[in-house]
Amino acid sequence: MAGSMTGEVFRISTWGESHGKGLGVIVDGCPAGISLSEQDIQMYLNRRKPGETKYATPRKEGDEVVIMSGVFEGKTTGTPIAMMVLNKSQKSKDYSDIANVYRPGHADYTFDAKYGFRDYRGGGRSSGRETIGRVAAGAVAAKVLDELGISVLAYTKQIGPIVCDSTCMSWKNIEKSPLRMPDLEASAEAESFLEQKMREHDSAGGIIECVIQGMPAGVGEPVFGKLDAALAGNIFSIGSVKGVEIGAGFAVAEKCGSENNDEFYMSPDGRVKKATNFAGGILGGISDGDDIVIRAACKPTPSIFQKQKTVNKDGKEVEIAIKGRHDPIIVPRAVVVVEAMAALTVVDSLFVGMSSRIDKIRDFYNH
Amino acid sequence: MAGSMTGEVFRISTWGESHGKGLGVIVDGCPAGISLSEQDIQMYLNRRKPGETKYATPRKEGDEVVIMSGVFEGKTTGTPIAMMVLNKSQKSKDYSDIANVYRPGHADYTFDAKYGFRDYRGGGRSSGRETIGRVAAGAVAAKVLDELGISVLAYTKQIGPIVCDSTCMSWKNIEKSPLRMPDLEASAEAESFLEQKMREHDSAGGIIECVIQGMPAGVGEPVFGKLDAALAGNIFSIGSVKGVEIGAGFAVAEKCGSENNDEFYMSPDGRVKKATNFAGGILGGISDGDDIVIRAACKPTPSIFQKQKTVNKDGKEVEIAIKGRHDPIIVPRAVVVVEAMAALTVVDSLFVGMSSRIDKIRDFYNH
Amino acid sequence: MAGSMTGEVFRISTWGESHGKGLGVIVDGCPAGISLSEQDIQMYLNRRKPGETKYATPRKEGDEVVIMSGVFEGKTTGTPIAMMVLNKSQKSKDYSDIANVYRPGHADYTFDAKYGFRDYRGGGRSSGRETIGRVAAGAVAAKVLDELGISVLAYTKQIGPIVCDSTCMSWKNIEKSPLRMPDLEASAEAESFLEQKMREHDSAGGIIECVIQGMPAGVGEPVFGKLDAALAGNIFSIGSVKGVEIGAGFAVAEKCGSENNDEFYMSPDGRVKKATNFAGGILGGISDGDDIVIRAACKPTPSIFQKQKTVNKDGKEVEIAIKGRHDPIIVPRAVVVVEAMAALTVVDSLFVGMSSRIDKIRDFYNH
Amino acid sequence: MAGSMTGEVFRISTWGESHGKGLGVIVDGCPAGISLSEQDIQMYLNRRKPGETKYATPRKEGDEVVIMSGVFEGKTTGTPIAMMVLNKSQKSKDYSDIANVYRPGHADYTFDAKYGFRDYRGGGRSSGRETIGRVAAGAVAAKVLDELGISVLAYTKQIGPIVCDSTCMSWKNIEKSPLRMPDLEASAEAESFLEQKMREHDSAGGIIECVIQGMPAGVGEPVFGKLDAALAGNIFSIGSVKGVEIGAGFAVAEKCGSENNDEFYMSPDGRVKKATNFAGGILGGISDGDDIVIRAACKPTPSIFQKQKTVNKDGKEVEIAIKGRHDPIIVPRAVVVVEAMAALTVVDSLFVGMSSRIDKIRDFYNH
Repeated sequence: MAGSMTGEVFRISTWGESHGKGLGVIVDGCPAGISLSEQDIQMYLNRRKPGETKYATPRKEGDEVVIMSGVFEGKTTGTPIAMMVLNKSQKSKDYSDIANVYRPGHADYTFDAKYGFRDYRGGGRSSGRETIGRVAAGAVAAKVLDELGISVLAYTKQIGPIVCDSTCMSWKNIEKSPLRMPDLEASAEAESFLEQKMREHDSAGGIIECVIQGMPAGVGEPVFGKLDAALAGNIFSIGSVKGVEIGAGFAVAEKCGSENNDEFYMSPDGRVKKATNFAGGILGGISDGDDIVIRAACKPTPSIFQKQKTVNKDGKEVEIAIKGRHDPIIVPRAVVVVEAMAALTVVDSLFVGMSSRIDKIRDFYNH
Repeated sequence: MAGSMTGEVFRISTWGESHGKGLGVIVDGCPAGISLSEQDIQMYLNRRKPGETKYATPRKEGDEVVIMSGVFEGKTTGTPIAMMVLNKSQKSKDYSDIANVYRPGHADYTFDAKYGFRDYRGGGRSSGRETIGRVAAGAVAAKVLDELGISVLAYTKQIGPIVCDSTCMSWKNIEKSPLRMPDLEASAEAESFLEQKMREHDSAGGIIECVIQGMPAGVGEPVFGKLDAALAGNIFSIGSVKGVEIGAGFAVAEKCGSENNDEFYMSPDGRVKKATNFAGGILGGISDGDDIVIRAACKPTPSIFQKQKTVNKDGKEVEIAIKGRHDPIIVPRAVVVVEAMAALTVVDSLFVGMSSRIDKIRDFYNH
Repeated sequence: MAGSMTGEVFRISTWGESHGKGLGVIVDGCPAGISLSEQDIQMYLNRRKPGETKYATPRKEGDEVVIMSGVFEGKTTGTPIAMMVLNKSQKSKDYSDIANVYRPGHADYTFDAKYGFRDYRGGGRSSGRETIGRVAAGAVAAKVLDELGISVLAYTKQIGPIVCDSTCMSWKNIEKSPLRMPDLEASAEAESFLEQKMREHDSAGGIIECVIQGMPAGVGEPVFGKLDAALAGNIFSIGSVKGVEIGAGFAVAEKCGSENNDEFYMSPDGRVKKATNFAGGILGGISDGDDIVIRAACKPTPSIFQKQKTVNKDGKEVEIAIKGRHDPIIVPRAVVVVEAMAALTVVDSLFVGMSSRIDKIRDFYNH
Repeated sequence: MAGSMTGEVFRISTWGESHGKGLGVIVDGCPAGISLSEQDIQMYLNRRKPGETKYATPRKEGDEVVIMSGVFEGKTTGTPIAMMVLNKSQKSKDYSDIANVYRPGHADYTFDAKYGFRDYRGGGRSSGRETIGRVAAGAVAAKVLDELGISVLAYTKQIGPIVCDSTCMSWKNIEKSPLRMPDLEASAEAESFLEQKMREHDSAGGIIECVIQGMPAGVGEPVFGKLDAALAGNIFSIGSVKGVEIGAGFAVAEKCGSENNDEFYMSPDGRVKKATNFAGGILGGISDGDDIVIRAACKPTPSIFQKQKTVNKDGKEVEIAIKGRHDPIIVPRAVVVVEAMAALTVVDSLFVGMSSRIDKIRDFYNH
């Protein structure tokens, strides 16, 4: 499949460049009957926008979404939902210096290698603005999940060496932190760390954790269609992600089976439960009814105002320092993108999974 | 898409249960003209078979593959290649004790939750034997890659706390180690560690590293179709994998941009090269011509001969100790499965990528 | 997608050549809990086998199917159902004369043009035996439909100039006719016609009509995913089909809107019905609850024992008369293949359609 | 796959309703380096617009296309091409009378059956305006084909009983006829016929023929991925199409094998050619290098200003006469839609087919 589409039954198709006319997405396969407004989408888009804080690029991004189709009298109609954000008058000249130079850590060279040339303005299609389509579609997916009592929430788990203690965390604290780090003490520490990085004209990486609550057991397909594989693949497709893990994740390498196995027990309401959740809510690729817990590692922003060696399009070795102000960290803005990709994946899995059992299909088509 | 198919242009479809009549795979979309014999496939399947060592289940698995179609006079014809391994007389009674009990760390409960019941014999479809289809298809993919000068090789990077030093590693050492750990000193140490685990009726986890060499630059699709996302998704679909990372991986969380960016330079033969490879050979989802380096964390074997608390199908809390002998570690046998999934992903990306540029398409259809 | 897979949620993947080791199919996405035996499949396969009549090749085809996976204790498990028919000792030498010659009306030349060479034995992958996989999968689809009260039945509508009067037809008559023509008078006439063609070493074409009964209204996707488009595409993929039409079909060209529109009325049981069915049971790509009526035109068997001009692989002009006995008509054996493709298409559409409305999804996941 | 996406490697995704904010399409998988302007697209869109003639609705449709992404400095970049047409201030009140009534021959009832309700304004998603996305995407596909020397051209073959004699036809005549019927005598006759239908407040059907020239031999996949099956499925997805045939089409039913087989010969330039083209340019699902000739039957416009019996949403039987002026025939405007669907299908097949042979793949990746 071409690169900008994903999903099996709940499908999306995104488009747009950093400095083109706009960016957007089509959601095809969204059920009819869900109340949906531009405000529902805008709420999510605002969370990926740079805020007023100093940790995000001050470039004024309005990013006002318009729903172009698929909604009638406030409800989804079941037909494609097209959503669009127009780009405000971008000054392309700002980027003219990078037209011929391959920025380290960016996709400039690989786009040229693949396509022969590229839209170099602001990174073109490989810009972080590409995620606008993901987030708008994710907002629709979140509405679907809401109807089914499922929530998806992500937060900043780590920035540089500072790890958020999330043992007794409150979701409300996430938005209190300019870094979306609900452990507000750690958040303050991370702020100092980032200020230091900015003074050094450098950038920092981090880890995002995403928790999916309210999942019914039995969702996901075995073998290649495992729910964790689908989540991992989709979250890995976010620009700066270099690793994804679920539950105990990479720590399993040093654990024994007797430690890592989650024992089952019966809850008072007669449901099968796990005493621990090292599995992260998925066993054999299928949800076990527990919270799904997944983490993504984001690399430090590659755009830094330090001299770096590189080459240009003509094969000359040159030096470059990326001008303009750039986010010293991608993580806080990527939190909502991780949520979006997780929500999209879960909705698709829920829909594919509706035909797993003939008894349920019979019921479905008989009423 | 249903769970047991994957790929866009080079597609595979696997089937089979641990104790059914057999297991197999169809490879559809394999180009015509590649020499292919059962021996080519068997070589790979033998690598996933338990060896003579004590770290793998002594159950006699013949696993002789038969190519049923798609090869004529020793060459692939371009039509579907069906491959099959028949199961030798499995004694189903050996597994009768687990028919109604949900083994911790296994997919028993989630299969029941999804499908209403399951083939409980030896884990049925969720057994590790499911990987036979993956490996057979991966062997075909490896033949395709071989024609293009691309190699995929994986090895055991870590077992429990013992990490393999791979800085000056020799590929030849991989097969010298019963654990596929090319640092033979570490391998010996890991052997002692595993013997200890076995005495404790316990199991261990580890990490597999996979290196893809000879990749041309420019392969992979932007946005959702990123080559790293496809690799991650497909490798994550292997039974015990709980995390996947590329290049610097999770370590990026604690790195600065100035450390993590790979600077470009011109090689003497006029090619764009990177001074380091923290990116792991992929930038913006597209191969940069460098080695692709990807790692997967495998959980410890969940089948252990220790009493564990669990519940049965009727909702009663019970205790279980998994009888029979089981691999104390999955990693060494999963090495070839990781290779298979990587090879399948790369071939598919190479084929999808053939239509990226009109000049190359014009050349293609004009000669 | 590679050529031998089809379906979105209920997917199949076929393999096998006329003179290879066997032929088969994987059905992935079949719901769990359907009772399924080899006998269920064999019943369908027997209908595509040459009978004892003179209108079908006397080559002894046993075609005994084996279910290799996906069924446990007589019920589908929800995992891939692999089915296989082994080829009986075919004498490849019988076909050695056509190894280098392009038979008119066959795919010999185009396979060579595409792949560079071909498995020429009995037509290889382009043989009519390829339909074994379709019919076996279709039998599974028919079982799914049976659970939902939907039936798919096809019959011979026309052979050469002889048209079957199906106005007051009895389904039982279909199997009474050696040509599967339920108008037994027309069937007798068609027999004489075919005997004449055989004496002339020639062959005949015809038309198959397929009726789907019991369809709920509301199945099918708008725009590209129209149910009639899916049916047409899948039925058109059967070897000899040169045209597909639904309802009034090509006759609409000469009809007025006032004639062709089907008026709606309310049935006594309170359902919306159509007074006529020129639409053929589908409006705007979505089932309207009426019978779906679709027809396919099959070309005359291209293998005829008459001298025909052609060329060989080396670019020499030669003459060929296809030796051996061949069916003088494809239609009666293709009837069950049309049924199979229709059943597969309908099941897939039913499953995709389960996520059309949020109210129904909510109900589904709440019980 | 959700209803509004199609294609495997060259994929499109359409959106929009008759009276929503606009309509559009994303083309994903278009190669980089093709010169593309809004004028290229507009030229095609203008051909589907109602002209000044009386055979098309006089509603003023500006339908000015904007390319939103995927083109940089006049060339495609390889990333998604989003195209959009804004709807001019539609007066929704014009359609208020049909909000609750099911128009015969339209998708009103089936949309309600599927989705529970519908955007009734002007037919919503099931309006003929939906084809704007198809045609815009088709224009892009035509540019791709143009680079490869392939052309796709369609014309009106039949209107009611009047058949166009196309034996010695000139393509230039197509646009000379207000009905796109290159036999100008027949065209004049058809005009009289349509005037009569309009006086009777009735409508007419017809047949469109599409010819693809310049196809290389060897394109298309065997079994389900046959090129003719893909063409048929995609053309059948156009709103009013009730039948599709290729080459001799339905006429094969009455032909003998000796008549219908196309004999091969060698052309002076050393290519394999067919003496006749009853196959329509495709053998065994793969192009044979000859012209591809395909026909589609379109039903008469269902909107007629005659009283028709029907029912409303509340289950009451009512009468309806569709007010406003409507095209008395769909065919002339659908000609360009057939071209679009054919072009899209061929491009996708060409791209999928690039990985059929290892020798060509090796060449591709070695230069």
